[in-house]
Amino acid sequence: EIADALAALLSPGEKPLAGRRAVVTAGPTHEPIDPVRYIANRSSGRQGFAIAEALAGLGADVTLVAGPVSLADPPGVSTVHVERAEEMLAAVRAALPVDIAVMVAAVADWRVESDTPQKIKKREGEAVPSLTLAENPDILKTIATGTPRPAFVAGFAAETEHVIEHARAKLARKGADLIVANDVSAEGGAMGGVRNTVHLVDANGTQSWPEMSKAEIAARLAEVIAKRLDAPTT
Amino acid sequence: EIADALAALLSPGEKPLAGRRAVVTAGPTHEPIDPVRYIANRSSGRQGFAIAEALAGLGADVTLVAGPVSLADPPGVSTVHVERAEEMLAAVRAALPVDIAVMVAAVADWRVESDTPQKIKKREGEAVPSLTLAENPDILKTIATGTPRPAFVAGFAAETEHVIEHARAKLARKGADLIVANDVSAEGGAMGGVRNTVHLVDANGTQSWPEMSKAEIAARLAEVIAKRLDAPTT
Repeated sequence: EIADALAALLSPGEKPLAGRRAVVTAGPTHEPIDPVRYIANRSSGRQGFAIAEALAGLGADVTLVAGPVSLADPPGVSTVHVERAEEMLAAVRAALPVDIAVMVAAVADWRVESDTPQKIKKREGEAVPSLTLAENPDILKTIATGTPRPAFVAGFAAETEHVIEHARAKLARKGADLIVANDVSAEGGAMGGVRNTVHLVDANGTQSWPEMSKAEIAARLAEVIAKRLDAPTT
Repeated sequence: EIADALAALLSPGEKPLAGRRAVVTAGPTHEPIDPVRYIANRSSGRQGFAIAEALAGLGADVTLVAGPVSLADPPGVSTVHVERAEEMLAAVRAALPVDIAVMVAAVADWRVESDTPQKIKKREGEAVPSLTLAENPDILKTIATGTPRPAFVAGFAAETEHVIEHARAKLARKGADLIVANDVSAEGGAMGGVRNTVHLVDANGTQSWPEMSKAEIAARLAEVIAKRLDAPTT
């Protein structure tokens, strides 16, 4: 499906990203509470997997860093499986230097500081435990403001309200070149499905795409990225 | 594989559970924190799905109440999909009256009391949020001590230490007829895999089975249940 979507956009055999390296994150992270419990974000990983495959389809050498998902590793991509946000950051760093970083994963903002090695037992009559949270590393910001910085850094923003305003604030705060915003409210319904509606927010403004399949978004986004690398905007 | 495991134990066409009704729970529950985050238990659902299929293979009319899993609905079983513990309990209650209840799901002990309709935003410089937890309904105990009570109620216990002692305490506390205990410590390693090592704990004592596939455990357990229903122990 991604091959079809790319074929519709490019002449056959066109490989504008040949010789380029890319790293893509996808899926949720799972932050352990104890050996049997964890905190997670909802994310099927489909959009990130499709983007990794689309970049590879344009000739890029792609490392996909995937949180826990139920998807097969995409063909032609080197996939690294991780669970926690800290592991995801380490795997992204290990893939550097790259030309392109597309951070699609729904990384947990917080981990449980008090992760215990034994299962927390429920005891009748006792108060329920409370979880002390600690802030996770901000993978997008770390990569966009660190060295060696990829030439092009894109992040995703899943929002339930004020989608574009939040994405614009995120663009500045993270130091990214592009934020792809999706509305994950019940009405937007990107989460878990095969279709998505996105808004591309960058220094030049906002471009809203009509609803399309995640494969088609991936193919178009890979094309946008290839053009930006050829002719960077000021 | 389950059909094979059953065939090895029984004469062809033997349906000792024909005319019996059963409800089985399987998988984790997901307890929402906000629209994009949740607390979950690790559980593939494989053992519960195999038990539902094995009971159906012995002729029972089986309702499987499944939390979020990546498994196909088992053939010959009526499967109801739920997310939260409260939804799981409601679906189990809706399946009553039954002769057999096998509660295999890894139900979250706690839900987040402060589940918010909008995504909780991370704000730099602000303290991390804390989660107020509330105790979830105890599905096994509710069914084992409620009316109409199934003739045979079995529960599963996933433990990382003192496996049999915890299972024996659970048997009494929940009012169940049988607890199937599995060691989910890193060394035990039942979680997510296709094999399992279990201990059957009931009023008569403890029976430890050698490591075998989850399908074989399901077939043997279905046979144990069929025998108990024919000749209840005192």
